[in-house]
Amino acid sequence: MTKQRILVIGGTGTIGTAVVKELSKRHEVVTAGHDHGDLLIDMGSESSIKEAFKKAGKLNAVVVTAGKVHFEGFNNMSAEKFQIGLNHKLMGQINIVRIGTEFVQDKGSFTLTSGILSKDPIFSGTSASAVNAAIDGFVIAAAIELPRGIRINSVSPTVVAESMDKYAAFFRGYEPVPVEKVALAYCKSVEGLQTGKTFPVGY
Amino acid sequence: MTKQRILVIGGTGTIGTAVVKELSKRHEVVTAGHDHGDLLIDMGSESSIKEAFKKAGKLNAVVVTAGKVHFEGFNNMSAEKFQIGLNHKLMGQINIVRIGTEFVQDKGSFTLTSGILSKDPIFSGTSASAVNAAIDGFVIAAAIELPRGIRINSVSPTVVAESMDKYAAFFRGYEPVPVEKVALAYCKSVEGLQTGKTFPVGY
Repeated sequence: MTKQRILVIGGTGTIGTAVVKELSKRHEVVTAGHDHGDLLIDMGSESSIKEAFKKAGKLNAVVVTAGKVHFEGFNNMSAEKFQIGLNHKLMGQINIVRIGTEFVQDKGSFTLTSGILSKDPIFSGTSASAVNAAIDGFVIAAAIELPRGIRINSVSPTVVAESMDKYAAFFRGYEPVPVEKVALAYCKSVEGLQTGKTFPVGY
Repeated sequence: MTKQRILVIGGTGTIGTAVVKELSKRHEVVTAGHDHGDLLIDMGSESSIKEAFKKAGKLNAVVVTAGKVHFEGFNNMSAEKFQIGLNHKLMGQINIVRIGTEFVQDKGSFTLTSGILSKDPIFSGTSASAVNAAIDGFVIAAAIELPRGIRINSVSPTVVAESMDKYAAFFRGYEPVPVEKVALAYCKSVEGLQTGKTFPVGY
């Protein structure tokens, strides 16, 4: 197995920390985040993404475990509130692939994050359901166009056990998954050979 | 069966014309479009959508068979080109549901349009795959929140036979479907009782 140099965007969040811990056993990991990490990055800003990739240098893999979406009852969702998830979790991740491709080595990979709400919706999740589904849809299409054998997948977790203190009220009846199990799906994407896939975790 | 008053946005396009023809046999249809129809509407503009609904008056069903998306090889797709489909086909349809809900009678319905590329991608279709998937994801989430028994579904057609003169080069090997068959799926959504569903047509 070849040692990889991997950028984990959102690498200090709940899922990101577990992904970094698992990948670091075998690879060199560079973390990036909005406020913490080896590099700072604002996923909502194309220029910030460009800047971060220039600083990151050559990479074998890019993992994104970040992305903001606004949760609110549909009758109070404005176009502006929808735009938060479209700009940040959706276009943020798409821009990371668009801009990052030239920094990724031959046969490298991108692994994005979507989520269970694309299939199994909750109150206040209309934007999240749309955005998560869009990410999985983007992945199947980008996979057939990326150059130089570069692969792309998404990981679509259910609610993570470690986040239940914050989200339990929204996810009644959803079986939470330990974050270490979610981290394995990212490793499957980064260290395996599949492309154009969504890996559901915990459902 | 109760006679319905139905707004078909995009009602003068290829699919829209067939939908209007089928629904008109049993219902009162009002058409809306960017350049043609009983009402003019610019789906990319929230204020234009509001204006059209005020003019349309009370409705039992709203069908959307319109929505612009930009097609281009991923290596030339800018964030601005992605934004066309996000603003128009995705947020246009979402805004039609958000704004239109108050104009739709109890137990009425919305029927949106997505498309096969969410599942079966082609070159130049990264934006279309993301947008179509987002529409189907939005539908499952909006279905559980819409008030007064209002339903919502999407129709996801493959390439339509009547459009093959324009699109054949992009859809080699895809079996085109006659537009009358696509129209039936919209009728199933409008005249049936299902909600939160995507009806694939021709695949």
